[in-house]
Amino acid sequence: MKIDILTLFPEMFEGVLGSSILKKASEKGIASYHLINFREYSDNKHKTVDDYPYGGGAGMVLKPQPVFDAVEDLLKKEDGRKPRIILLCPQGETYTQKKAEEFAKEEHLVFICGHYEGYDERIRGHLVTDEISIGDYVLTGGELGAMVMIDSIVRLLPGVLGNEESPVTDSFSTGLLEYPHYTRPADFRGMKVPDVLLSGNHKLIEEWREKQSLYRTYTRRPDLLRSYPLSEKQKAWLKEWEESRD
Amino acid sequence: MKIDILTLFPEMFEGVLGSSILKKASEKGIASYHLINFREYSDNKHKTVDDYPYGGGAGMVLKPQPVFDAVEDLLKKEDGRKPRIILLCPQGETYTQKKAEEFAKEEHLVFICGHYEGYDERIRGHLVTDEISIGDYVLTGGELGAMVMIDSIVRLLPGVLGNEESPVTDSFSTGLLEYPHYTRPADFRGMKVPDVLLSGNHKLIEEWREKQSLYRTYTRRPDLLRSYPLSEKQKAWLKEWEESRD
Repeated sequence: MKIDILTLFPEMFEGVLGSSILKKASEKGIASYHLINFREYSDNKHKTVDDYPYGGGAGMVLKPQPVFDAVEDLLKKEDGRKPRIILLCPQGETYTQKKAEEFAKEEHLVFICGHYEGYDERIRGHLVTDEISIGDYVLTGGELGAMVMIDSIVRLLPGVLGNEESPVTDSFSTGLLEYPHYTRPADFRGMKVPDVLLSGNHKLIEEWREKQSLYRTYTRRPDLLRSYPLSEKQKAWLKEWEESRD
Repeated sequence: MKIDILTLFPEMFEGVLGSSILKKASEKGIASYHLINFREYSDNKHKTVDDYPYGGGAGMVLKPQPVFDAVEDLLKKEDGRKPRIILLCPQGETYTQKKAEEFAKEEHLVFICGHYEGYDERIRGHLVTDEISIGDYVLTGGELGAMVMIDSIVRLLPGVLGNEESPVTDSFSTGLLEYPHYTRPADFRGMKVPDVLLSGNHKLIEEWREKQSLYRTYTRRPDLLRSYPLSEKQKAWLKEWEESRD
């Protein structure tokens, strides 16, 4: 997967792209990252990329010219193939694991990261294919949003995670939150591991985990259950918990 | 604000903490960042921090000992004052701008970032004050979540943003998505700025922006309107849009 990142702060990405899974994916040749400072595309002799908003108001607005020119320069090398062009912004579609799985099928992604200010609306309307928000909070720029998306997408690419780190049982991948994990020691300063996990009875362990996973989702994120296909057993557990609340 | 970050990958943070607003906040003495590699607290001669899960299954689990010891070492220096201790995890409370504003009132935050695997449940149950998820997607570790939280919190601290970058009209701060922004040129390759923004009539511009902001929220994030106190004028606009859909 080819990943182009348009940003005014390429140095922000080094630590994240150069560590852990993202580094591994690049070393294995599964993903390649290209940082493009679109300030270099400014046709202005001072290399400015922002300007005052029409109609007044606080904040500066990213000019269309440098962003359009930078993207068009990328597309020239693509022989007509169209990558997904993603704008990180609070007004975008809320990012989810389902979106990550969708983007993981693409061959080429382009991320546009604004900073401080708004984007000129013509970038939004005429250049990008996707507007994405990673959550309902305000960040200084799109850079962290792009890093979050890249991490969540690249780890899904075949060959990136080893067997030991399989993404299949992750929270959100199954539709429920993950069950509690415990490792040694069985007694840490008086805090003990539940007996069932030490029992060696795999059927009981399976059932305990399923029930914990459902209970955690029920108490913390009941909204996730609306779209989850409950089994009869799970429905009975939920009924039990509902009744014990009364 | 004092910010301690417990991580196995401190080098991931350098680019983000050393750029832009986060760098400025640290240079002005408004925020200080401390990276602690909790591997150094492992009491094991191989400095391992994870181990197999009780009950079997894929993935490794973060042991309680190094994390407990690292946090307790921090607390020793605090003369009994209790910081918020935040665990980044998919099972946590969904992060929002309201949460960012709440954390921005604290003097001391501690972030615990796991990586790859789950956390031993005893960390969750007995050590942390907050479990936070930045969104419904799976990341390789808690590091990006911590960076996202730190960025969103630090930019709210008094004196960090200049007047030109006021956070007051940001999306989510007002409860609605932001209206479209435009800057020069008025005509970019045939794509034009709306006439009203060139009119110089501030009352009309104000009203256009309010309507655009509401319309964008209505079409993209109607869920945000459920908790938004609509004015009579705004209710009339919504009614108009509802009717024109039929």
